[in-house]
Amino acid sequence: MQQVIVQKFGGTSVGSGERIAAVAEIIKNEAEINTVVVVVSAMAGETDRLIELSKLFGDNPNTREFDALISTGEKVSASLLAMALNSLGLKAKSYSAAQVSLKTTSNFSKAKILDIDKTKMEEILADGSIPIITGFQGITETGEVTTLGRGGSDTTAVAIAASLKANRCDIYTDVDGIYTTDPRIVPNAKKLDAISMEGMLELAGQGAKVIQIRAVEFANKFKVPVRVLSSFSSGTGTMITLENDTMENAEISGIAFQTDQTKVTFTAVEDTPGIASKILGPLSELDMKVDVIVQNVGIEGKTDFTFTIATEEKSLLDEAINNIQKSINYKEVIIDDEIAKVSIVGVGIRSHAGVAAKAFQALSENEINIGMISTSEIKLTLVIKKDDLEKAVKVLHDVFELDK
Amino acid sequence: MQQVIVQKFGGTSVGSGERIAAVAEIIKNEAEINTVVVVVSAMAGETDRLIELSKLFGDNPNTREFDALISTGEKVSASLLAMALNSLGLKAKSYSAAQVSLKTTSNFSKAKILDIDKTKMEEILADGSIPIITGFQGITETGEVTTLGRGGSDTTAVAIAASLKANRCDIYTDVDGIYTTDPRIVPNAKKLDAISMEGMLELAGQGAKVIQIRAVEFANKFKVPVRVLSSFSSGTGTMITLENDTMENAEISGIAFQTDQTKVTFTAVEDTPGIASKILGPLSELDMKVDVIVQNVGIEGKTDFTFTIATEEKSLLDEAINNIQKSINYKEVIIDDEIAKVSIVGVGIRSHAGVAAKAFQALSENEINIGMISTSEIKLTLVIKKDDLEKAVKVLHDVFELDK
Repeated sequence: MQQVIVQKFGGTSVGSGERIAAVAEIIKNEAEINTVVVVVSAMAGETDRLIELSKLFGDNPNTREFDALISTGEKVSASLLAMALNSLGLKAKSYSAAQVSLKTTSNFSKAKILDIDKTKMEEILADGSIPIITGFQGITETGEVTTLGRGGSDTTAVAIAASLKANRCDIYTDVDGIYTTDPRIVPNAKKLDAISMEGMLELAGQGAKVIQIRAVEFANKFKVPVRVLSSFSSGTGTMITLENDTMENAEISGIAFQTDQTKVTFTAVEDTPGIASKILGPLSELDMKVDVIVQNVGIEGKTDFTFTIATEEKSLLDEAINNIQKSINYKEVIIDDEIAKVSIVGVGIRSHAGVAAKAFQALSENEINIGMISTSEIKLTLVIKKDDLEKAVKVLHDVFELDK
Repeated sequence: MQQVIVQKFGGTSVGSGERIAAVAEIIKNEAEINTVVVVVSAMAGETDRLIELSKLFGDNPNTREFDALISTGEKVSASLLAMALNSLGLKAKSYSAAQVSLKTTSNFSKAKILDIDKTKMEEILADGSIPIITGFQGITETGEVTTLGRGGSDTTAVAIAASLKANRCDIYTDVDGIYTTDPRIVPNAKKLDAISMEGMLELAGQGAKVIQIRAVEFANKFKVPVRVLSSFSSGTGTMITLENDTMENAEISGIAFQTDQTKVTFTAVEDTPGIASKILGPLSELDMKVDVIVQNVGIEGKTDFTFTIATEEKSLLDEAINNIQKSINYKEVIIDDEIAKVSIVGVGIRSHAGVAAKAFQALSENEINIGMISTSEIKLTLVIKKDDLEKAVKVLHDVFELDK
């Protein structure tokens, strides 16, 4: 029986005429078997070119106009891909998000998808042509053009897959799947055939940039099976499974890491209830995202309170500290941006207490000092010195035998 | 009292960040006095870049996709112009043709405007912001994106002006008005302060490429006063007047010319009624445009029948001749593409029979041979050798003292 498959192609996959022709062949092969809906990003470099243009009249262009401007990138690639499919004898038509009524909130540049006109989609499919839909964008209730933020095309694809109850959403990119860690650092990193949605969420959040995290959350929520694979080489990619069953045996699925983090410590704060909210409240008011948070056990009624933020938000820190010191006493603030975050990800972590011990021992044997530790059900995150990162990733990849 | 002014800026007028900034100043000045609606073309070169892209997968891309592709050019310039106005402290918003419901026929790449949502336009104006509307494009009843053909932005501007009953439609371009002839050929060609709509129609049709002929027809039909002026220099441009009154004294308003013409002669055809339609019918069936038509007086029941076509349609001629020879007899077909058309334009022509005589004498004195002659109420068209064109234009410009 015919399945419904949503195929999404990223910017490098449609980065040139040759690449678009190659993508057309991929679509053709799938369309010979299944019903296909295609979602495209802008050609690689095009969005950056448009962003450059947007700065002609100041660094902070009006977001409504910014969205109207950069949303043209996907319209170009969508119509070119339709032309490429036509040249192979296939019926294909490009559609802007507006044309398929992909409704979003009205937060320009970071809009969220609210609804898709399923009837329109089904009409197009009933017409027997392959719809090529612009990713990354939508329209508001009043017809204003919005964008979903960088990487939003993944979310478009998953949202359309969810709306059509598609059998699978294939995210085509320039890597052939999800690896146990970055193969550029650990050459024997292994491609995973499958990873649980939960594990993927943790990996994506930790900077495994294969797929946008919001798309994975969306897939998780609407139970859309997602596959990540390459448009540059053949291969089955990595399936992001809905159930954890297939993953139960794999204790650890991967090592994720991130370097653009800054650690902030307030020393000798009073160890009283409410202290955390007095520190984190002012950060949240400035819309800053706080990641790892650690509060040590208090000694003599005083404690140290540490958290990490994205280094790009460091400029907001002065104002935040200014507000924090209005309501709490502390000795000093220590800011350190020479740190890195490394995470061991896998469903095995919750059931095997030995994972943490094994990790700590391996790092210690390699003289890597651990600054902070944070754990979740399926993730163990360590904050270490930035200089130690590469070694740490290799050590952890080895000790958990992820190349096997 | 505030007037409503539609300002249209062509591709060279918005060809760079600097040019867009200059255009924003022009709009600002007008908006301080009047209510302004802006229509923009794509940045110079952008449409050509997109047309190049459209040929990646064959020289004849699907016209629906072609329109979806090239219509992105105006969206880019419209949002950039809105940003430029924002940077001057003005409220401005870009709108695609779809967003103001500019409805067209569904002939992709050569759609005709059917209707504009005046209510939407008035809502935008009531909001106190300057609408920047994408020229050259529209949408069909079913929401498909169409384009109006090259130069269609002029038509968009005039159509919007007509819909809003604007007081004037200013067409900003890279020349400072309409001249008595091409100043590159006749250095003392004179800029006209005003020209009648009729005279303009003739000049535009003859290849005076300042404004698109369809736009002038539209303006004529809906009585929209149009002004042509430069965005590169100050000046009041040329007003295209609705009434002929101001023009009655100016016998001759200009010399127009065109070189991309091919002359076709059927010799020794029977001089009987219906012969013209037997020759022109097959041409019309192939959608070929016939321009000058001359049939000589018959001698011994035979006559020569000559007409001109656009050289770009020459490839269709074989098929047309094939069809023509099924219904008439003739001796031979002579095809000559080394010709040029030169026209003397002006309301004076109909009232002053001397114009033709004066022109013929001047050309004859300069040894320029006239191949064909055709007259209309306000135009005298001569077909001459292409090599003689430059000299002919200068001679005619001088003899009618157009530099005075």
